[in-house]
Amino acid sequence: MKRKARPGSATSAPHPVEPTVVLSPSEQLRPLSENELDVLEQIGSHWAEVLRRDGGSLPAPPIDPAPGRYAKPVLPSRLGRFARVRMSKREAPEEAVAVGPAGPPRSRLGGALHTARRLMTGPPLRSSAVMEERMRKIVALPVLASDLLSSVAYGPQAMLTVLALGGSVALALSLPISVALIVLMVAVGTSYRQTIRAYPSGAGSYLVASDNLGPRAGLAAGAGLLTDYVLTVSVSIAAGIQAITSAIPSLAPYTVELGVLAIAILLAGNLRGVRQAGYLFAAPTYAFLVAMFALIGFGLAKSGAHGFAVTPPPAQTATEAVTLFLIVRAFASGATSMTGIEAVSNALPVMRPVEWRNGRTVLTVMVGLLVFLFAGLMILFHLGGIMPQAGETMLSQLARRTFGGGPAYAYVQITTALILLLAANTAFSDFPRLLFFMARDYYAPRLFLRMGDRLGFSNGIIVLAVAAASVFAVLGGRTEALIPLYAVGVFLAFTLSQAGMVVHWWRRRTEGWRRSMAINGLGATLSAVVALAAAVTKFTEGAWIVVFGIPLAVLVCLRIRRHYDLVGRALALHTLPSSARGRRFVPSPEAWGRPSQARRPAVGQEQEESPEEIDHLAVVAIARMDLASLHALAYAASLGQPVLAVHISPDADEATDFRRQWQRFGDPLPLEIVDSPYRAIVAPLVHYLEALHAHPAEVTLTVLLPEIVSRHLWTQVLHNQVAGRLRRALRPLPGVVVTTVPFHVRD
Amino acid sequence: MKRKARPGSATSAPHPVEPTVVLSPSEQLRPLSENELDVLEQIGSHWAEVLRRDGGSLPAPPIDPAPGRYAKPVLPSRLGRFARVRMSKREAPEEAVAVGPAGPPRSRLGGALHTARRLMTGPPLRSSAVMEERMRKIVALPVLASDLLSSVAYGPQAMLTVLALGGSVALALSLPISVALIVLMVAVGTSYRQTIRAYPSGAGSYLVASDNLGPRAGLAAGAGLLTDYVLTVSVSIAAGIQAITSAIPSLAPYTVELGVLAIAILLAGNLRGVRQAGYLFAAPTYAFLVAMFALIGFGLAKSGAHGFAVTPPPAQTATEAVTLFLIVRAFASGATSMTGIEAVSNALPVMRPVEWRNGRTVLTVMVGLLVFLFAGLMILFHLGGIMPQAGETMLSQLARRTFGGGPAYAYVQITTALILLLAANTAFSDFPRLLFFMARDYYAPRLFLRMGDRLGFSNGIIVLAVAAASVFAVLGGRTEALIPLYAVGVFLAFTLSQAGMVVHWWRRRTEGWRRSMAINGLGATLSAVVALAAAVTKFTEGAWIVVFGIPLAVLVCLRIRRHYDLVGRALALHTLPSSARGRRFVPSPEAWGRPSQARRPAVGQEQEESPEEIDHLAVVAIARMDLASLHALAYAASLGQPVLAVHISPDADEATDFRRQWQRFGDPLPLEIVDSPYRAIVAPLVHYLEALHAHPAEVTLTVLLPEIVSRHLWTQVLHNQVAGRLRRALRPLPGVVVTTVPFHVRD
Repeated sequence: MKRKARPGSATSAPHPVEPTVVLSPSEQLRPLSENELDVLEQIGSHWAEVLRRDGGSLPAPPIDPAPGRYAKPVLPSRLGRFARVRMSKREAPEEAVAVGPAGPPRSRLGGALHTARRLMTGPPLRSSAVMEERMRKIVALPVLASDLLSSVAYGPQAMLTVLALGGSVALALSLPISVALIVLMVAVGTSYRQTIRAYPSGAGSYLVASDNLGPRAGLAAGAGLLTDYVLTVSVSIAAGIQAITSAIPSLAPYTVELGVLAIAILLAGNLRGVRQAGYLFAAPTYAFLVAMFALIGFGLAKSGAHGFAVTPPPAQTATEAVTLFLIVRAFASGATSMTGIEAVSNALPVMRPVEWRNGRTVLTVMVGLLVFLFAGLMILFHLGGIMPQAGETMLSQLARRTFGGGPAYAYVQITTALILLLAANTAFSDFPRLLFFMARDYYAPRLFLRMGDRLGFSNGIIVLAVAAASVFAVLGGRTEALIPLYAVGVFLAFTLSQAGMVVHWWRRRTEGWRRSMAINGLGATLSAVVALAAAVTKFTEGAWIVVFGIPLAVLVCLRIRRHYDLVGRALALHTLPSSARGRRFVPSPEAWGRPSQARRPAVGQEQEESPEEIDHLAVVAIARMDLASLHALAYAASLGQPVLAVHISPDADEATDFRRQWQRFGDPLPLEIVDSPYRAIVAPLVHYLEALHAHPAEVTLTVLLPEIVSRHLWTQVLHNQVAGRLRRALRPLPGVVVTTVPFHVRD
Repeated sequence: MKRKARPGSATSAPHPVEPTVVLSPSEQLRPLSENELDVLEQIGSHWAEVLRRDGGSLPAPPIDPAPGRYAKPVLPSRLGRFARVRMSKREAPEEAVAVGPAGPPRSRLGGALHTARRLMTGPPLRSSAVMEERMRKIVALPVLASDLLSSVAYGPQAMLTVLALGGSVALALSLPISVALIVLMVAVGTSYRQTIRAYPSGAGSYLVASDNLGPRAGLAAGAGLLTDYVLTVSVSIAAGIQAITSAIPSLAPYTVELGVLAIAILLAGNLRGVRQAGYLFAAPTYAFLVAMFALIGFGLAKSGAHGFAVTPPPAQTATEAVTLFLIVRAFASGATSMTGIEAVSNALPVMRPVEWRNGRTVLTVMVGLLVFLFAGLMILFHLGGIMPQAGETMLSQLARRTFGGGPAYAYVQITTALILLLAANTAFSDFPRLLFFMARDYYAPRLFLRMGDRLGFSNGIIVLAVAAASVFAVLGGRTEALIPLYAVGVFLAFTLSQAGMVVHWWRRRTEGWRRSMAINGLGATLSAVVALAAAVTKFTEGAWIVVFGIPLAVLVCLRIRRHYDLVGRALALHTLPSSARGRRFVPSPEAWGRPSQARRPAVGQEQEESPEEIDHLAVVAIARMDLASLHALAYAASLGQPVLAVHISPDADEATDFRRQWQRFGDPLPLEIVDSPYRAIVAPLVHYLEALHAHPAEVTLTVLLPEIVSRHLWTQVLHNQVAGRLRRALRPLPGVVVTTVPFHVRD
């Protein structure tokens, strides 16, 4: 397994380094291509001509847009939160800068919520506070190993639970299966060592599989890992709670509540951002290792004192025949002991240089520890005749047997629970990061690119917490119900990642590629066998959810990508045919109804239009002649564009009344009344506007909706919700712009 | 009790008739006062001067606003529903009419929902289809009596359930308490006869109490009745299901499901509008009466054959001492037998003329029937030694004992269930009507004035169904848990209504007022005693919800009224001080920062503004330079008003990039970049706009938000939700108008 250090490869990676991933808040904005910039320039020069800005056809802003010159204290409104903006004086005298984070709204409820949020997450951090914390090996090991090592708290038990179904005969197979699992651990570990060498800047399964096997394989690995992270949280919390309820059985009925509470605490901690506490996180892992070493040492010593006599386990009644199926199922369940082995390859950027070398060392130590713990526990379970039983974990039984019920026993249980909590916590940094990578490639909603107040990807954190808590609650926090879902996704990701490495070595053929390819090939094959075994043998127990879920997730990701590509193309700047330029539709009553010669954009899609090409009609929807309506009418009339008032009347008498009022008003603007004998308001108005819009003259309709705004949320329900409904109904209409003219009521 | 027919009073009411309530869809619009119309005229003449519409400062609409002339088939959009609009040719050649109800949207899901809704409720009805159906006495009796008569299915049992707590000693008191209840029935019935005479156009407790005792008493009666209607549905459905499960005990575990299903069926039926089926509704009541007469007749005959020997009830172990408290509690429980006695007085407008006279006849017959049924059942219960027992109602026990388990027994159970369903159904017309009256007086949200597609008040119907189903489900559909909540609200409403009548007679002092006042006074006193008794003795069993709920509801109603009054005043048209006229702020860079001399409206409230008084600045919020942003910029520029582009930049590099792009664009419009180091977008933009708005020059800011609109709902989550959040954040700012410029993507 040891590779000779070659000259020149000590400080630099053996292959071209991928650029280190920069997590920047501007990642959310797609940059403009050089071609688009050219088009922008062309469009701009046309606009300049049209607008003759200096000549003066468009008036200059009536007020100075730089607020610094007259800034006076502005108080936040009752409902809104805002961040203070000041002119930045030194760097860019013309630029405004938000000098603080968003403050609380002035309403009492809003303020309380704001305070609660601040207390939970702390004050927002500036983008410039993003920093890469590099970890020494002694710190990296416990932080990265927690997920892997904590798996021995449930993996062996999951395996023996299956075997017990076959009765005492099947139990005799536990040691051979354990040996097979240890071979698997070493093989996969070695395989990941190769990956680390090839991808020194971080080698998540999603990246490696995408890079070498194409986007579909990458997405499958990504989807597998996402389910894995959700289940890591659920399973680890479930096992942690089990460690506690094994010691204190009276807490058992509150398993679901305790689990959801634990997830809520992890959520709060991660929203706050616990990265800086990395050193603190080292403690539970070392404490757990101490507990395990003590347990295995004392246990073996105690057993040695009795000449390693095997206590026969309580007689098991076989409920299933000992078939190959049962054995494979037990093997697949036991394989959950090695979940988390991929942690180092994901986290290389947080290692100190030389990252890949340190990473390999950490990985080797981790796998060594895993093999030791797994083997030690399996031997002790065998010697002690310990079997899975309801209400107490096997680890708890072993500890109780070895140490009695005293403080040493309590120490084992507490450290087990702590490392499991820590393992769940690692998923809270991996899951959002993976979603970030997927969103950056347009395979996941862009909102996962957004950095929260504390520079974490809060959207991903929240999604993980909700998903894990739901899975946990639905399955009642029972580890045995969660395990079948677990293995498939993990080993699928392992398989794809290592198969990707095989392709990688095949393509590059750098020095020693044959050996690396062979190692990765073995790892991929073994992982594939486990994934397949898990999918088949646990299909009916819940694995079907993952088996069908992952392809579905891949499809959804591809659809998301397709949508973003489509939007990207639709939004990309491109030149218009020159024939479209210079047209101007001159409205005249005679021209009504005659088709215009002008270019007509495809229905359903706006094209870039030059300002002079837009003909306006402002349509003001009026229910009754009150100040709010007059305000909207005045606003419309003051724009200097043609105005049309529309009234939807529920019956003929009301229509007559309204027309009379309008005449009394002096008929200053054209009015159209639409009778609506079925009392609907939105539907006839929408059709009327569509009918207007069907006119060939291609007019942009600006629909103005007077809206009463009151200061309290509860009073909003007292007013007609028509404005909101109209806005939603008018949204899909091309060429219709909706403007809400608020009328504020002080209440 | 009989009153001599006085000449002249046979066809006309003895007192000035209140105008009959017209249920019109235009009720939702507050009419304009004469003073407001004057103001409207003044404002209009000023506007005409300003706009010089004929002279031409404001261009005429570029297209004909009457769509009839060029109407071509317009298809509904994917997401919107619309109603076809055609020019009405005959009546008003200049008016458009929606010729059909709203059609289905084109999306598959929307279409399916639309079809499901149509299947459930039938096609929408024209407003002109509102019609008053008048009922003959023979039809009115069963329809109005169902609520009252069905009460004997649960009232006696509720009373005996309480008495049984006191053991056999207490049970001996059942007959004396029954006599007291019969006295109460006759007294309240007689009292309502007075009310009917005085309010021949409908005498709901809310109206009578408001009219005579003031709005607070009216609201208390209204709130009492609203809870009563909700509980009528819950209790009647619970008792109906009990009648069924008594016959078929295997259905008992599905009580909640069956009850919610029954409420759902009532909801669907009432949304569809079942008024036309009035005659159909007569059947169950008569069928129930037949069943009861047969039961009582056979039962008495059978008992007579045995010389009216009293079968002693199974020995009851007393769990409570026989105190006055227990007796009063039993009395209050038994009083639920007379809920629904107010039905006639509410429903007078549906009677044939002479309404009040026919109403009185119907009421007298109803009360007579009630007394007969109640007395008959109580005697039979006593003779047969029938006691409340779990799993079978007393009525079912009696019927089983009298008829055996054969078809006659089944008939009793089926008709009991049917009349109870019918009783629940009456609440579905009373509850929305009461809410309509309260909303018309501005004590309830105006949305309860809205007539649905089928001319029913669908909002009220839905609220009732949801409330009743919730109460039913929370209390597990157990009649005995619902009863304690029931009596308080009903008898409070009775008390207030009859106390109102006392005041009425005292004020009017028409012929025979002393006698009428005495009768109503007695009714009010007895009702008050029952209400008080119920509130005190059942307080801990659930009555506290009603005791605290009703005052709370009154407070909420008063707050609602206050809010509507405030909005009404704010919206009312009023003249502005003439000094405000003629001002025009001329923007110039030199004037920046200097306070304007112009009138400044109170912050938080727009005043009517004349078009020439509004100075514009269009602020376009831009994230990146794509077609959607250019479209919004072009729209803004084409308005001919000053434009300012604003970009919120998450970091300094991005700001530099953006400025470079803008320069490449040719800098055709002023641009302001706001640095947001905390990555917030909404908060700094809101503060920037507030800062701009704090400028003394009083400029109306139109904030233009480019928004990507895709055709599918699921893809909307893939885009930034910033536009929506900005719209909500900007809503409270006075003088800020928000315009969404959609950019449609075909996907």
